[in-house]
Amino acid sequence: MAEHTVSPSSTIVVHHLNDSRSQRILWLLEELEVPYEIKKWERTAEKVAPAELKKIHPLGTSPVIQDGDLVLAESGAIVEYLITKYGKGRFSPSEAGWVDNLYYSHYAEGTLMPHLVNVLIFTIIPDRAPLLVRPILRMAFNTLISQMIAPRLKLNSKMIEDHLAKNPGRFFAGGENVTSADFQMVFPLEAWLTSTTGVAPVGEHTRKFLEIVHARPAYQRALEKGGEYNYA
Amino acid sequence: MAEHTVSPSSTIVVHHLNDSRSQRILWLLEELEVPYEIKKWERTAEKVAPAELKKIHPLGTSPVIQDGDLVLAESGAIVEYLITKYGKGRFSPSEAGWVDNLYYSHYAEGTLMPHLVNVLIFTIIPDRAPLLVRPILRMAFNTLISQMIAPRLKLNSKMIEDHLAKNPGRFFAGGENVTSADFQMVFPLEAWLTSTTGVAPVGEHTRKFLEIVHARPAYQRALEKGGEYNYA
Repeated sequence: MAEHTVSPSSTIVVHHLNDSRSQRILWLLEELEVPYEIKKWERTAEKVAPAELKKIHPLGTSPVIQDGDLVLAESGAIVEYLITKYGKGRFSPSEAGWVDNLYYSHYAEGTLMPHLVNVLIFTIIPDRAPLLVRPILRMAFNTLISQMIAPRLKLNSKMIEDHLAKNPGRFFAGGENVTSADFQMVFPLEAWLTSTTGVAPVGEHTRKFLEIVHARPAYQRALEKGGEYNYA
Repeated sequence: MAEHTVSPSSTIVVHHLNDSRSQRILWLLEELEVPYEIKKWERTAEKVAPAELKKIHPLGTSPVIQDGDLVLAESGAIVEYLITKYGKGRFSPSEAGWVDNLYYSHYAEGTLMPHLVNVLIFTIIPDRAPLLVRPILRMAFNTLISQMIAPRLKLNSKMIEDHLAKNPGRFFAGGENVTSADFQMVFPLEAWLTSTTGVAPVGEHTRKFLEIVHARPAYQRALEKGGEYNYA
């Protein structure tokens, strides 16, 4: 690991929340082989990040990294930052894969995650409502999921599957090397496969992508270091 | 405009939906001064993109651009693609603004837009439900907005305002030139200012940012060419 150390004064700190988007950052750091420390945070009883995280970043979300004086949130930005600063040219897409990498790097959180998060919200809310209104809320939210989210997720599932089928066994930018698109896509796909296939299916190539990622030694190390993670 | 023409065979086509994220792409193309054509699409009675858009891109959303054989969706990817390919070094952040540009380029759709979209969904849904259940749904959704979304939007508002206050009158990457972060941020901020200030306020520096953008000749040209747009 010493070979890849950039500066002893800039050990990266990852503010890591269990079962969250920050797991992908641990995977990336293991692939990059740069030294880092994990500061673990636990979800509250309401399953959200604890209020104390706001002392690190104004939005109080995870992941957040600290690299020297820099405090940076937002998975897409963190992934791009770390690859550019510490990647030494590895984990960059080929010329031919540049646009696909760009697309899936932004699509993961810009389009896919909001659908999956809403399925979660719409499922949880009725369970927390007063007993008397639960049935009507459950009916309303189930209608929302089936009429609004499910058809869109099915289109998303097909698009991802068709994309991965073009280069079976390869990564999102079409090559044999992981790029920012893969780090970004892994979390929504894990969450989808674990908890949302009842709303819309996940295709075979997509499952295979996750298997390939999960088998990587760097991913395994990240899983071990991150602690509780119910999506892999 | 001829000076900046890249190739006559690759005139860019923008699939533009009224009152949508694609307005930012028109603004960018006007700033870039590259030739482009607009293919206009109209929202359906349900206020969503027409099903025919799926013939252009599998998800059927807007914006989508065509550049030669390339079909590209997702605002963040389109903005980055166009600036890299046609920007000639303009619209790139300074070294000092690189991380802020990265952050706000991803944050706009990765964090901010989902909150704003959910306010819209949670407001509209009760109005479309059967008359008898409307009051209970309205109460439930208003609770969701006030307890779940409003506190988060307030944090977002403060973060954006504090960021812009550091360099008054400048853009999101801290400089005097617009960069991808500005093209990405303009739409959620316009939508917020137009329809969501009742849930959470928008600060003075944020309003000023929009005023500065709206006064730019390129923005004005984009507005004129795009047609119906209720957010500026």
